[in-house]
Amino acid sequence: MVYVASPYYVTTSDLSSKRRQPDLSRHLSAEARARLPNPIKSIWKVAQVKPGTINMGNGDPHHTLYPIGEMNLVVPSIHEQDPVQAWRIGTGEQQTVSSYRDEPCALSLKTAMAYSAGAGLKHVRDALAELNDRIHAPPKHTVTLSLGNADALTKCFRLLGDPGDSFLCEEFTFSAMTNAALPLGINWVPIRMDKDGLIPSDMELILANWDEDSRGKRPHVLYTIPCSQNPTGSTLSLERRRQIYQIARDWDVIILEDDPYFFLQYDLDIRQTTIERYGFFRAMADVLPRSFLSMDYDGRVMRLDSFSKIIAPGMRLGWVTCNEFLAEKLDMLTDSSSQHPHGFGQAFVSELLGSRGWGTDGFMKWVASLCREYERRRNLFMDVFERKVAGSGLASAETPQSGMFVWIKINLDLHPRYKELEHTKLLVGPVSNTAELMDELFRKLLECGLVMMPASTFAIVDRSGCVQSESHIADRVNYFRATFVGTDKTIEDGLAIFGRGLEEFFCY
Amino acid sequence: MVYVASPYYVTTSDLSSKRRQPDLSRHLSAEARARLPNPIKSIWKVAQVKPGTINMGNGDPHHTLYPIGEMNLVVPSIHEQDPVQAWRIGTGEQQTVSSYRDEPCALSLKTAMAYSAGAGLKHVRDALAELNDRIHAPPKHTVTLSLGNADALTKCFRLLGDPGDSFLCEEFTFSAMTNAALPLGINWVPIRMDKDGLIPSDMELILANWDEDSRGKRPHVLYTIPCSQNPTGSTLSLERRRQIYQIARDWDVIILEDDPYFFLQYDLDIRQTTIERYGFFRAMADVLPRSFLSMDYDGRVMRLDSFSKIIAPGMRLGWVTCNEFLAEKLDMLTDSSSQHPHGFGQAFVSELLGSRGWGTDGFMKWVASLCREYERRRNLFMDVFERKVAGSGLASAETPQSGMFVWIKINLDLHPRYKELEHTKLLVGPVSNTAELMDELFRKLLECGLVMMPASTFAIVDRSGCVQSESHIADRVNYFRATFVGTDKTIEDGLAIFGRGLEEFFCY
Repeated sequence: MVYVASPYYVTTSDLSSKRRQPDLSRHLSAEARARLPNPIKSIWKVAQVKPGTINMGNGDPHHTLYPIGEMNLVVPSIHEQDPVQAWRIGTGEQQTVSSYRDEPCALSLKTAMAYSAGAGLKHVRDALAELNDRIHAPPKHTVTLSLGNADALTKCFRLLGDPGDSFLCEEFTFSAMTNAALPLGINWVPIRMDKDGLIPSDMELILANWDEDSRGKRPHVLYTIPCSQNPTGSTLSLERRRQIYQIARDWDVIILEDDPYFFLQYDLDIRQTTIERYGFFRAMADVLPRSFLSMDYDGRVMRLDSFSKIIAPGMRLGWVTCNEFLAEKLDMLTDSSSQHPHGFGQAFVSELLGSRGWGTDGFMKWVASLCREYERRRNLFMDVFERKVAGSGLASAETPQSGMFVWIKINLDLHPRYKELEHTKLLVGPVSNTAELMDELFRKLLECGLVMMPASTFAIVDRSGCVQSESHIADRVNYFRATFVGTDKTIEDGLAIFGRGLEEFFCY
Repeated sequence: MVYVASPYYVTTSDLSSKRRQPDLSRHLSAEARARLPNPIKSIWKVAQVKPGTINMGNGDPHHTLYPIGEMNLVVPSIHEQDPVQAWRIGTGEQQTVSSYRDEPCALSLKTAMAYSAGAGLKHVRDALAELNDRIHAPPKHTVTLSLGNADALTKCFRLLGDPGDSFLCEEFTFSAMTNAALPLGINWVPIRMDKDGLIPSDMELILANWDEDSRGKRPHVLYTIPCSQNPTGSTLSLERRRQIYQIARDWDVIILEDDPYFFLQYDLDIRQTTIERYGFFRAMADVLPRSFLSMDYDGRVMRLDSFSKIIAPGMRLGWVTCNEFLAEKLDMLTDSSSQHPHGFGQAFVSELLGSRGWGTDGFMKWVASLCREYERRRNLFMDVFERKVAGSGLASAETPQSGMFVWIKINLDLHPRYKELEHTKLLVGPVSNTAELMDELFRKLLECGLVMMPASTFAIVDRSGCVQSESHIADRVNYFRATFVGTDKTIEDGLAIFGRGLEEFFCY
C-alpha cells in the first residue's frame, strides 16, 4: 500500500515511526474541548512532589471509619470440569472470593472504598489490560474502566459528537443507544446490512458520495456491534473487519467497537492440546474473533468490553480500550460525571482474576464453559425452530455464531394481504405494507402470549432525503429478534406459540 | 401571604389544591426535552399487560448463570454502645450483612444483579424514601438512585442547563462541580457569602437587577451546599433557608440542594429520653437541620444525598429526591447514560437498612456515633489551632457546625508586603495583592510539608462585567480550606507546621 499525503495525518517527529499517527483532536466535540482539568486535582499533582507531605486539603473520610471490614462473594469453584453446568444444576463445589480492609489481598478495601480517579484503580486497569494484551495484542492502548457498555458508549457520543454531526451505524441496531445520541443533536446514517452484517462497500459509498455542502460534516464516527450484532445476531468476518478498518482509515473515521457478546462464541475449534499445554486462556484467545482493536495501528478504535453478559448485568462494570489521547479525554468526562466506578466491583474483579480467585485462566475456563451452555441453548432453539416453525415456510433464520439473538425472517410475501406498489426511482417512502403487517403479527403473537422484538424497534431510517439505498427500510422490517438465552422450557413453549401464531396469521 | 398571578405558575384543575404548582417544564434543557423513551422498554410496557407472557425479546443472561450465589459484608455490630469507637479501635463485635441469590433476603441477588431501570430497584428506593419521610417529611416527592452526588449533580446540570444559561452558586464553592458545567455552556453567577453562608439579599439583588437583554435568561437554578458548605464549612440557618426558598419561589428558581455532609452535624442536643422512648432515628431526626426539601411545596428542590461520607466514597451510591416530573426526566437521562446503579450497592443497602442488618434505627445510631467521633476531631482541631496558630493573630477560624472543613482566614493585612490600591468605583479588577501573597504562602507551606486548599481554587469570578459587588473576589481569597477528618497526628503535626510556616511567612 502506498501512503498518500492526507490532511488527516500528522507526521510524528519520531522518524523511526513507520506509521504516521492521525490527528485525533479533530474528532473531539466542543464540549470535550472545553473541559478543564479538575482544579482540586491539579493542586494535588503539585502537592505529590514531596513524599511525607501532610494532607489537610481533602475531605476524604478516613478508612478506619469505613464500616466494611471484609467482603466475601461465593462463586462457583473453577476446579469443576464444567463449572457452568455444575453451578447451574447446583451440584458443584463453591469457592469464596474475599476482599479485606486490613488483611492482605489483591486490592485492599481501604483503596477500593476510597475516592479515586474516574479511570478506575491501577490494579484493576492493569488486570484488564493483561486480558486485553493476551487476546487482542493491541498496539499501544490504554484501558480505562466504565460502568458497562451503555455508560461507555454514551460517554463516547458526548466525547465525539457535536450537534449536527452525522455518525454511521448498522441499519438495524441497538436503538436504546442510538436514541441516546439524538438529544445531543447527532444524526444517524444507516449502513446497509446483509446476513453477514454491515456491508463495507455501502459504508464506502456513503462516505465517498457525502456532500458536505448539503449534509454537513462527513460522518467521522462508526458505531458497530461486530459480534452477535444487536438485533441481527450476525458476526463480522475477518475479511469485512479488515475492509471496514481500511475504509475508516481512508476517511478518518473513529470506530466505536461495542462488543458485549465477544466472549460468547459458538462452534469454536478449541484445541484440547492447547488447553493441556498452555491453559484455557491461550486456547480461547487462539479461536476468538479478531477485534478491530487488534488491527488498530492508528488509534482510531474505541473498544468497549463488559462483564454484563459473562458475569451479570448488575456488575455495572466494563472497560474501554483506546488510544491514550482519547482515553484522557474520556477520563476527564468521567471525573466530571459518574466519577470512579464503585469499589465493590473493582475489589471483586481484582480478587476474581487474582491468584486467590479464578485467576485469568480460570476466568477463561468459565467463559468457555458458558459458551458451551449457550451453544447448547442455541442448538436447542434452532432444532425447535426447525421442527415447529420453519416447516411451514413462513419464517426462516440463520444460525448465529455468537451472542444471544436469532434474527427471524418472516416470509411476508406469502401473506394473502401482502401488497407491493410498483417500484419507481422517484419513490422515497416504503413500497409495501410490510410495516403494517408486522405490527399486526406482533400484536397477534402478544395475544397468544409471546413477545419477540419487532425489527421496526431497531430500524434506523435514513433521514438524509437522498435515495442512496435501493429500498426503504420499512420494506425490510419483516424480522423479529428472538433470544435463545432463556430456559429450555421458554424456548420450547415460545417457539410452539410462534409456529402456531404464524400459521394462524397467514391463514393456513 | 397574598398570591400574585405570575407567569411561572399554572393553576391545577384540582380546585381543592390550595397551592398552585409551578410549571417546571420551562426549566428543562433542550437536550432533556428532546430525549425519547427507550423504544425497547416501550415495547415491554405493552407486553407487561398479560401475565404469563413468554419473553423471547430481551437478551438478559439468566440468573442461574450469574456466578455469584451469596454476598457477605462484615460490618460493625450495631449493638455496641458506641459503634464507631469500638470499630475504630478494633475491640468491637462484628456482624455480617448477607445477600443471597436463592435464599430469602431483603433483596435477592437474582434481582439486584439483573438489568433494571435507571432509577434503581423499588425496594431500595422505598427504603430511602422511608428515611427521607422520617427526616424531611417532604411534600409529595420521588426518590431515584444516583451514583453519588457528583453523578447526580452533573446529571441535573444536563437536565436544566442550556448553553448560555446562567446558574447561581455560592461565591466560593466546590469547583470540581461548577467546572463540570462549563463545557455545557453554563455560566456561573456567584452570590456573596458571609460567615453564615450565602447572603439571601445578595441573591435577590442579582435576580431583581438582572437585565435579560444584556445578560440573557435570568438565572433559573441555584446550586447550593447548605451544610458544611464546601469550602467554607458554613451551615445555613433555618431563617436563611426560608428566605432563600422564598426568593426561589418569587423568581422561579430551581434549588439543587447538594447535601453530602447533612448527616455529620455537631453540638447536637440529642435527647437521651427520646432515644430511650423512640430510638435513635427519631432522636436524630428531631435535631438535624431542616432541609430545603422539607419546605418544598412547589417541587422546585432537587435534593442530593450520598453514602460517601457516612459509609465510604467507594459506595458510589446516593439518592435524589425531587418532584415526580423532574424525577422522570432525570431517570430518562440515567437510562440513556450510566443506567441502573450497581447491584452490589443496592443489595448491601437493602440488607444494611433491613431487619437482619442495622435497620434504620441502627443506621442512625451509626450516624450519631460518627458525629461524636468527627465532633471530637473538630474539637481537637480547634484546640490545636488555638494553641499553635491563633495566638499569633495571623489567622483565625470559625468553629464549623457540620461536615469536614474549617475555613481559615489569613490576616494578610498584617503582612509587611501587603498592598492595597485606593478603591474607586471604576475599578473592576482586584485592588490588592492578596492573590499573589496567598499563592506565595501556599508554596511556602508546601515546602514545609503541608497542603491546605487555597481559597482561589474555589473562587467563582463574576464574569458578568457588572460591578455588583463592592469588591473583587481576588481580594477575598485570603483563606485556606483545611480538614479535620484526618488522624489526631495529622491534625497535631499539620497545624504545628501551619503555625510555624505562617510566622516565618509574616517574618515574625
